[in-house]
Amino acid sequence: MQQYRSDLSIFQERESEARGYCRRFDTLFTRAVGSELFDADGRRWIDFLAGCGSLNYGHNDADMSAALIAHIQQQGLAVGMDLHTGPKKRFLELFARHVLAPRGLNHRVMFTGPTGTNAIEAALKLARKVTGRHNVIAFTNGYHGVSMGALAATGNGYNRMGQGALLPGVTRHPFEGYFGPGVDTADMLAQLLDDPSSGIDKPAAILLEPVQGEGGLNQASRGWMQRIAQIAQRHGALLIVDEVQAGCGRTGSFFSFEPLGVVPDLIALSKSISGYGLPMALLLVRPDRDQWRPAEHNGTFRGNNHAFVTAAVAIEKYWQDDSFSQGVAQRASLVTRELQAMAAMVPGAYLKGRGLMQGLHVGSGALADRILRRAFERGLVIEAAGPEDEVIKVLTPLNISAALLAEGLSILQRAVAETLGVPLPVRAAQPVAGRPAASQPAATAVAAAHADLAQAA
Amino acid sequence: MQQYRSDLSIFQERESEARGYCRRFDTLFTRAVGSELFDADGRRWIDFLAGCGSLNYGHNDADMSAALIAHIQQQGLAVGMDLHTGPKKRFLELFARHVLAPRGLNHRVMFTGPTGTNAIEAALKLARKVTGRHNVIAFTNGYHGVSMGALAATGNGYNRMGQGALLPGVTRHPFEGYFGPGVDTADMLAQLLDDPSSGIDKPAAILLEPVQGEGGLNQASRGWMQRIAQIAQRHGALLIVDEVQAGCGRTGSFFSFEPLGVVPDLIALSKSISGYGLPMALLLVRPDRDQWRPAEHNGTFRGNNHAFVTAAVAIEKYWQDDSFSQGVAQRASLVTRELQAMAAMVPGAYLKGRGLMQGLHVGSGALADRILRRAFERGLVIEAAGPEDEVIKVLTPLNISAALLAEGLSILQRAVAETLGVPLPVRAAQPVAGRPAASQPAATAVAAAHADLAQAA
Amino acid sequence: MQQYRSDLSIFQERESEARGYCRRFDTLFTRAVGSELFDADGRRWIDFLAGCGSLNYGHNDADMSAALIAHIQQQGLAVGMDLHTGPKKRFLELFARHVLAPRGLNHRVMFTGPTGTNAIEAALKLARKVTGRHNVIAFTNGYHGVSMGALAATGNGYNRMGQGALLPGVTRHPFEGYFGPGVDTADMLAQLLDDPSSGIDKPAAILLEPVQGEGGLNQASRGWMQRIAQIAQRHGALLIVDEVQAGCGRTGSFFSFEPLGVVPDLIALSKSISGYGLPMALLLVRPDRDQWRPAEHNGTFRGNNHAFVTAAVAIEKYWQDDSFSQGVAQRASLVTRELQAMAAMVPGAYLKGRGLMQGLHVGSGALADRILRRAFERGLVIEAAGPEDEVIKVLTPLNISAALLAEGLSILQRAVAETLGVPLPVRAAQPVAGRPAASQPAATAVAAAHADLAQAA
Amino acid sequence: MQQYRSDLSIFQERESEARGYCRRFDTLFTRAVGSELFDADGRRWIDFLAGCGSLNYGHNDADMSAALIAHIQQQGLAVGMDLHTGPKKRFLELFARHVLAPRGLNHRVMFTGPTGTNAIEAALKLARKVTGRHNVIAFTNGYHGVSMGALAATGNGYNRMGQGALLPGVTRHPFEGYFGPGVDTADMLAQLLDDPSSGIDKPAAILLEPVQGEGGLNQASRGWMQRIAQIAQRHGALLIVDEVQAGCGRTGSFFSFEPLGVVPDLIALSKSISGYGLPMALLLVRPDRDQWRPAEHNGTFRGNNHAFVTAAVAIEKYWQDDSFSQGVAQRASLVTRELQAMAAMVPGAYLKGRGLMQGLHVGSGALADRILRRAFERGLVIEAAGPEDEVIKVLTPLNISAALLAEGLSILQRAVAETLGVPLPVRAAQPVAGRPAASQPAATAVAAAHADLAQAA
Repeated sequence: MQQYRSDLSIFQERESEARGYCRRFDTLFTRAVGSELFDADGRRWIDFLAGCGSLNYGHNDADMSAALIAHIQQQGLAVGMDLHTGPKKRFLELFARHVLAPRGLNHRVMFTGPTGTNAIEAALKLARKVTGRHNVIAFTNGYHGVSMGALAATGNGYNRMGQGALLPGVTRHPFEGYFGPGVDTADMLAQLLDDPSSGIDKPAAILLEPVQGEGGLNQASRGWMQRIAQIAQRHGALLIVDEVQAGCGRTGSFFSFEPLGVVPDLIALSKSISGYGLPMALLLVRPDRDQWRPAEHNGTFRGNNHAFVTAAVAIEKYWQDDSFSQGVAQRASLVTRELQAMAAMVPGAYLKGRGLMQGLHVGSGALADRILRRAFERGLVIEAAGPEDEVIKVLTPLNISAALLAEGLSILQRAVAETLGVPLPVRAAQPVAGRPAASQPAATAVAAAHADLAQAA
Repeated sequence: MQQYRSDLSIFQERESEARGYCRRFDTLFTRAVGSELFDADGRRWIDFLAGCGSLNYGHNDADMSAALIAHIQQQGLAVGMDLHTGPKKRFLELFARHVLAPRGLNHRVMFTGPTGTNAIEAALKLARKVTGRHNVIAFTNGYHGVSMGALAATGNGYNRMGQGALLPGVTRHPFEGYFGPGVDTADMLAQLLDDPSSGIDKPAAILLEPVQGEGGLNQASRGWMQRIAQIAQRHGALLIVDEVQAGCGRTGSFFSFEPLGVVPDLIALSKSISGYGLPMALLLVRPDRDQWRPAEHNGTFRGNNHAFVTAAVAIEKYWQDDSFSQGVAQRASLVTRELQAMAAMVPGAYLKGRGLMQGLHVGSGALADRILRRAFERGLVIEAAGPEDEVIKVLTPLNISAALLAEGLSILQRAVAETLGVPLPVRAAQPVAGRPAASQPAATAVAAAHADLAQAA
Repeated sequence: MQQYRSDLSIFQERESEARGYCRRFDTLFTRAVGSELFDADGRRWIDFLAGCGSLNYGHNDADMSAALIAHIQQQGLAVGMDLHTGPKKRFLELFARHVLAPRGLNHRVMFTGPTGTNAIEAALKLARKVTGRHNVIAFTNGYHGVSMGALAATGNGYNRMGQGALLPGVTRHPFEGYFGPGVDTADMLAQLLDDPSSGIDKPAAILLEPVQGEGGLNQASRGWMQRIAQIAQRHGALLIVDEVQAGCGRTGSFFSFEPLGVVPDLIALSKSISGYGLPMALLLVRPDRDQWRPAEHNGTFRGNNHAFVTAAVAIEKYWQDDSFSQGVAQRASLVTRELQAMAAMVPGAYLKGRGLMQGLHVGSGALADRILRRAFERGLVIEAAGPEDEVIKVLTPLNISAALLAEGLSILQRAVAETLGVPLPVRAAQPVAGRPAASQPAATAVAAAHADLAQAA
Repeated sequence: MQQYRSDLSIFQERESEARGYCRRFDTLFTRAVGSELFDADGRRWIDFLAGCGSLNYGHNDADMSAALIAHIQQQGLAVGMDLHTGPKKRFLELFARHVLAPRGLNHRVMFTGPTGTNAIEAALKLARKVTGRHNVIAFTNGYHGVSMGALAATGNGYNRMGQGALLPGVTRHPFEGYFGPGVDTADMLAQLLDDPSSGIDKPAAILLEPVQGEGGLNQASRGWMQRIAQIAQRHGALLIVDEVQAGCGRTGSFFSFEPLGVVPDLIALSKSISGYGLPMALLLVRPDRDQWRPAEHNGTFRGNNHAFVTAAVAIEKYWQDDSFSQGVAQRASLVTRELQAMAAMVPGAYLKGRGLMQGLHVGSGALADRILRRAFERGLVIEAAGPEDEVIKVLTPLNISAALLAEGLSILQRAVAETLGVPLPVRAAQPVAGRPAASQPAATAVAAAHADLAQAA
């Protein structure tokens, strides 16, 4: 078995300055299982980051591991380009049966380069091809990736890197609620597109995330989203929904757009679609929009067969009925309750997001940073989102156990309390004897969690 | 063990029209080992495509399989974003020791999204950031990927899809030899960049493949390449070498630029860098060019730890000394000899490329297509490259056995002969008794191959 | 003396389909003086179009004619490129003394190609050069010209011609009032620019017309304009004010921004700056923004000396004190009053604009077209503006006589009444004996006008 | 009569740094007639710049002056937008009769904004509209103006100002002879456009000047130009010829493309089209390419009626037969002979251009600058062209008298001799008694000129 020493000097010496997360979480991770991470010295963290949403089923799901090992042992293909292969066939069958069919979707599956940004690139190119137009409506705080096509649609100025006029073809529009509750930004878009002199060119597509993962957990309401879909239809534009972070059950339903009552033309999936953290991405294409010519958009790693193997397990294991969704909803309720308790400790703080994609807006990135650093010291890996990284984002595996969820939330609560210098709520005052205080879950939280999640286990 | 039925209807029904290779190679592949592919019915093909260059060490290398299974069994991380992880550390150490150090390179390693196009996107953004310029010189028939930044630099009109002004920032220049042997296109570039009124904006970078993989196996000579490097330096532009297809030993040396006597500022690697066909890409950055800010260019799957595990095995197994390179050279000689024999059978045909990245220009894509279809029927997976897909490209695993190499070349030779309606050379006249003619290696070829490759085995 | 026959066939045969105004005003104009136009058959029209705002002092001002003839007779230069010439010197001196100095402006004068669009092109290039940024904020319904740089900032979709991604570098923002009275679009801009994740790149400039001439006479309020100026300053962007149509006294003050309490970095002037309808344009540049290198932005006709001659007369004759401005204000009051009377005749109609740049929004372009055609038949040349050409725009010479103003307004009123099929207001019921009804001014209007304008004559 | 004092301080104080020519020619010009310029102090210069080619018939042609004064006196329109007016009608008739018809052209006339760059903008937009493509092939050292659309096609880096990706839609190609006599750049273009993988998008247009005015007097041969026209036709691209500087007789024929045997789709004219130096421009459009919608491309000063008046005189006076062209040819021969004499005085110097658009390449911009400054001191206004301003460009009025032409060339010859420190050729050794040496024509040159031009007077 491979052993790793904890010395980190090679990263300073040899890895590019582009590295990011490792600066905050500065240790050598060597093992992970379920919702827990371990470093080379055996130290443990609860994982509230979940591979940035690529580990919705946790680390090293035993069934997926077994299937993947079996695939390797029987010399299944690893890379398959876009050849027909067994695992791809099986994935397609299961995905069609358990994901598409029950939701009334007849979309075709396009396997793109195995990252979210590649799927978005494919979507934008297809929308432009189908419509013969160039303009794409994208939204404030939208995040769609960092390759140039997707980056043009991404709001984050840090990632945009001042590439300026090299990022053409996008008209930015305010997301729902951007200007506060009194301003309907869908009406605004309708007015702009109806006005032949507004200067907004007829769009090839409207691209959005129903819940903005990196942008700060802003979420679209059912009414707004339907208005957007109507606007797209009325103007002959394709509706592209980016489900890269919010999809695969993150908000409870498989797709985050499901409860919003729309049917997108194109749907981008990545991150958790493989179920195991393996690189994979796909674009769902409404059949009449599938106007690709053979190999027009290509790429070597479109056929990551290891990912297809684990993805098939994930679909079969978690999505044959709605019990998994119910479990997400129950955990989400717990998260809401605990975040509300924390919000009460931070002046002006408030909750954002939905499902297991919720967070706490603490007012500033500096404060969030202090809380997150303290949480890491106490055994919790968790990150922030939003324009200034001011939203502490709870992104747990969707099947996290009641105990770990409660423990993680308790650590976060303590980190908030300690950073703010405020007392913990009463219920958390008595640590359970014999366990170290740092990772001590609040007693009531644990009890509540166990009760809540009993049937979802 | 997972069994797959050979029915292909699900692909027609559910996979996007964007699929390509599977149309030519229309069967269900289920197993692969070394240089052989097998379908659901047990039919065998020799693999002269090698995952489009992502399988330089063949399918399912036993040592890599073992290491990967061990990693999974000990619950190593799958996705690691850009966290410090054990496999990443080990890869960095081995890559620095066995690849960079012996070649006098002190570049830093940037892990990008796990596809070649993502590495190119990172390179272009960095070059533009470092120089404050926007223009990039790219070459006729260059191929760098299909996300919008990389696509702007890609020559292929089919892939460019008429996206037009959405692909800004690139000045196209003729590659070496584009206008025939009498025209030095490096001198042309020098003249254009020295002329303040040429209309060519000062470049941020010059981007090229030393051997153009998709563009038709056009190769840069040492003199031309050094001129290009001097021009880049003289004008303050970064030299970016795309080693996505030609790197990792494909031409014999680890990097295809090694024999050309240049030191690029940025080097993109992908395809075979994981050794096993797993999605992975990286950008090598000269330290003084490493002006990234933390997480400025990011992406979830930058840390494919499964790929790091196999990549480490690949480096350690194949690149500790030059014996592997010698083996490539020996196989390459054999390929040259056999392709020359085939060239003699096709009026006007000639050889292109170098190392195990050689091909036969047969004059038209239509002819190549007929030959390739016949080869596939006879048990050989092989593809074409070039503007019209008129160059039959031999892209075997670099460690293909003498017997399989000879057998594959023999199939190809027969396909050429049958398509052209010309007799085989004499040495191939007598099939070995007891084996089906279709996959019958030419006797002399086998003998020659065995002799040639004896010491490289 | 040159005689012209009224046959128009040569235009159909030989002039491009791009011609526009002549389709509505389909006769051969041969003479013009003051506020009147005459065709080859001697028919007369009152001119409420005024060369689209390029004839603020009317046609063939006698003093300008005399000065121009003298210039020609003494063999003064016609074209002077950017040489120092006498007329240019004199214009500079008078413009500095009578226009810039009294308004506390110390801007430098850049002579650009002699059209408004060329001045805007120069402004955008300079702003981008000074700031090193690429993005320019421009507004819905803004109109800045049709060359590609200016066109990118122009809202009109018809003029944008689907040139798409060839019009880069502009972020469109809603002008004041675009979303109705309750929505402050300056606050919106402030929020977007303060948000590092809004996707709006830091601007090189904010470009706007204080009164949108072609866009439908939308006007910026003092408070909104000051907010915009503050936002520009706060973000290091240049404030560019397009005074091409609204400047040179059109709204009463020389610059339309004067009453709004801002000092733009760059100010574009054209149309009436020559005073006589001769092609001329200039860009006023705040001295610290004057970072041009010699001849960096050039053009042969920057030095139209005939225009400088008449421009000097215009400045000296009309702008030595504020009597001219007062006359504009008095005429504007009359226009307001009469347009209000017309508004009462058209369901839903309302007034727009200010000064002698007012109009009547009649609800649809189709209705406006019918009114305008009828007005033309009755002896009035007048046009519409707005996204659908639904705003009838009164753009008289600024020194139009009381009688002609009243007569023109009366024709317009009748055209409205006849088109709508409603009776004229009572005061217009009795035509003056002996004059044809069509061009009969409303008696009360004439009386009112004479009284109102007595001191401004 | 207006008097101007020679003090220049107002220009330093108030004119933008963008001013250029006036820095070299630093005096106050107040009068001009024919081929002579005079400053406020009565000093005289011979004009070898001719308004940068906008004064092909010299300053203040008496017939044009008379016609213009008459037009003003009879209150003809100045600005006419695109209304039908008498002078426009007359110009159209004469231009069709004397210019288009004799050359077999049935193009329609589009009046654009009155500068060359505006005509080019219109041409590019129309070509993109007609073809539905975006790419335009433009050439090294091409000069088409400085508004953003035209600037994208302009080679000069100084004028391009690093606007970078804001100048999209142009592929640069080497002009004829750019890589020396052995390299056929038309063949190169053919190869690039025939290659689907060259990376050059199918063009909407090919845009070029048959003689590059600002780019250094590079000229296209008949064979090369015809190849370019064939390539355009073969690929469905429009051929746009920029005749802004080379047209209106500058090279002898009315259009510089006439002797080259091609029929462009679009032809841009400006500069000397008004004949008098007044701002005017037009685009000739092959009827089947005239796909403009009404007012799609507009602009206030498209109808500069003063310019139409003088343009009509110019056509009628100079282009009813070929005597004017013959006069140009005779003067051009003289210029050639004298420039050859000068070339013999400057090591490495050689002649460029044709007609009265010839120049002397003296090897460096620094040397040219010294010669030009000396020439100005001695009474000659003349400029340089080329990438480094290293080509001294003789751009006289086309009807310059024999005496002035000889005198100007003599001044230039002396300036060359004095700058290089070499003796004048023998024939110029004896100044004529009683005249100041500075403006002393070489005796033989004058005699030769008188003889040569006797019949052309």
